[in-house]
Amino acid sequence: MTELLLHEPLDMHLHLRDGEMLRTVAPLSAHSFSGALIMPNLIPPITDAESLRAYRQRILEAIGDEIFEPYMTLFFKAEYDLDFLAPLAEEVTAIKLYPAGITTNSEGGVSGFDLETLSPALEAMSKLGIPLCIHGESSGFVMDREKEFVPVYEALADAFPDLAIVMEHITTAESLEALERHPNLFATITLHHLLITLDDVAGGMLQPHLFCKPIAKRPEDREALLRAALEAHPKVMFGSDSAPHPRHTKEAPGCAAGVFTAPIALPVLAELFAQHDKLENLQHFVSNNAQRIYDITPPKKKVRLTDTPMKVPERYGEVVPMFAGEEIGWSIAEVSEE
Amino acid sequence: MTELLLHEPLDMHLHLRDGEMLRTVAPLSAHSFSGALIMPNLIPPITDAESLRAYRQRILEAIGDEIFEPYMTLFFKAEYDLDFLAPLAEEVTAIKLYPAGITTNSEGGVSGFDLETLSPALEAMSKLGIPLCIHGESSGFVMDREKEFVPVYEALADAFPDLAIVMEHITTAESLEALERHPNLFATITLHHLLITLDDVAGGMLQPHLFCKPIAKRPEDREALLRAALEAHPKVMFGSDSAPHPRHTKEAPGCAAGVFTAPIALPVLAELFAQHDKLENLQHFVSNNAQRIYDITPPKKKVRLTDTPMKVPERYGEVVPMFAGEEIGWSIAEVSEE
Repeated sequence: MTELLLHEPLDMHLHLRDGEMLRTVAPLSAHSFSGALIMPNLIPPITDAESLRAYRQRILEAIGDEIFEPYMTLFFKAEYDLDFLAPLAEEVTAIKLYPAGITTNSEGGVSGFDLETLSPALEAMSKLGIPLCIHGESSGFVMDREKEFVPVYEALADAFPDLAIVMEHITTAESLEALERHPNLFATITLHHLLITLDDVAGGMLQPHLFCKPIAKRPEDREALLRAALEAHPKVMFGSDSAPHPRHTKEAPGCAAGVFTAPIALPVLAELFAQHDKLENLQHFVSNNAQRIYDITPPKKKVRLTDTPMKVPERYGEVVPMFAGEEIGWSIAEVSEE
Repeated sequence: MTELLLHEPLDMHLHLRDGEMLRTVAPLSAHSFSGALIMPNLIPPITDAESLRAYRQRILEAIGDEIFEPYMTLFFKAEYDLDFLAPLAEEVTAIKLYPAGITTNSEGGVSGFDLETLSPALEAMSKLGIPLCIHGESSGFVMDREKEFVPVYEALADAFPDLAIVMEHITTAESLEALERHPNLFATITLHHLLITLDDVAGGMLQPHLFCKPIAKRPEDREALLRAALEAHPKVMFGSDSAPHPRHTKEAPGCAAGVFTAPIALPVLAELFAQHDKLENLQHFVSNNAQRIYDITPPKKKVRLTDTPMKVPERYGEVVPMFAGEEIGWSIAEVSEE
């Protein structure tokens, strides 16, 4: 038996939703992760101290006794300035910027990337050390959207050199290259983008449970992402972008975008890293890099994983996970507080 | 009111299926088309005279009193030789070649393109004047499959210069370019590939009713196809690839590939050609080119179309058509035998 002990695993891009869905999915992340960066794209989005605190409270209630830190984010607004942000700096781990309309519940996002308009908010964030997380896609052709957004990332990185900018859920080789050119650019990579390409979504039969935004790209993109993760590239962090949707909204025309991976992420990552003989790097990919980039100290939690197969449930509540009903090669043997 | 009179419209790539589905969809094509090239990928596929004749008979029974010629095809087998094909030459309009496993019911297709193996059949077809229709996709990455197949088309066209080869349902600019290099290459283009790109399938929400093989490609591909159709490129014919699947197989994980367009194809084509001020070219795209390329004389049928809007039904039997429930700008005013 092979085993791996992970300390303080972190999911730096997580959708917990709200209400009944929150109560279904939050305990699943809280069980195996020490903390997660919580996305703010609720309806309405989290844009002030009051809703941020209330959401954090609802998350803590949903997870019960689990040791788990919800690292909270605000939904970016150009109106945020130093006066607004300064009193919140301790409670806000990051601010998430969505181009308007680009993904689930992003209608109130940014409609242009005029640096002058964005400047007061981004200067305030630089000063306060609050990283900016971006869903970086243009409104162009679906396979080009991320590539077309790279110049925006680069312009922002140049204009605000003291601002840490996280390119969220990157899917292309071009985004990895941009990381190398700018000291203040970082990235998250999901589990599913390490595993699938567009072929898995639409190359055989159409698979709505693998449909996500950004859409899975080409084999050479997946290879580049996998190399960066396996080598635990110091500017790259794990962020699942685990996005629960009720089954009926996935298995119908107008299928919502998102892959639900939170409960199986750590075992599948362990299996993937073991297959490539890189188990020793997983600790960096799922925790150490994020702790350093975000300057956070998550609560103590040890997760022991072994290469004991497990069958993934068909559903968690109304949500169908990745690998539903299939056997995966690793499982969580034990979770403990240190 | 604008109107257009089409003579003997032809659909040179049509799936009619069998049994109950055949009885549902065949009358819809037979109502507005004068004839169609009938695809042979049943289970089991049509590979001999007996099953070909029996299938033709079932089609004729399904269409009732409509004037409609089902141009029959065989499912390509390397075993076909002159002795086998010569007695069938009058009944077989074309032979359809599928790479093994590339689309619906294609498991018994060709697994390699060894010219020596294929030679007896292709020489016999050349001699008998039977065109070869090919679903030209490699088994590579979904967006590259057609482009990767172009060298196979070109090798076949060079090796069998007397064989008419039809590149079926082309979706890329590269395939159009190959047409120009080989006098014996021709092509069909579907309605949906003139209208949609991958953006329409997976760029917003996922739309299973627009999922098809070959998958819709890039905007510049669609533009190139549209130009060729609107100009009624003399080597290009309309072939709907209308592919009915029961709704429950489209609106579920593992969604089948195919767009059902047969009943709305002529009005939507008229609307499209009218929008581009090319109505006068539609007759060539939907009939004259095919008559010349296949050397066929379809039964007389006049279809009068007008720019009177119509609402597309939500379903035909269990099949959801393209534009289900939406209004389209043109409709069929009258069909008559001359």
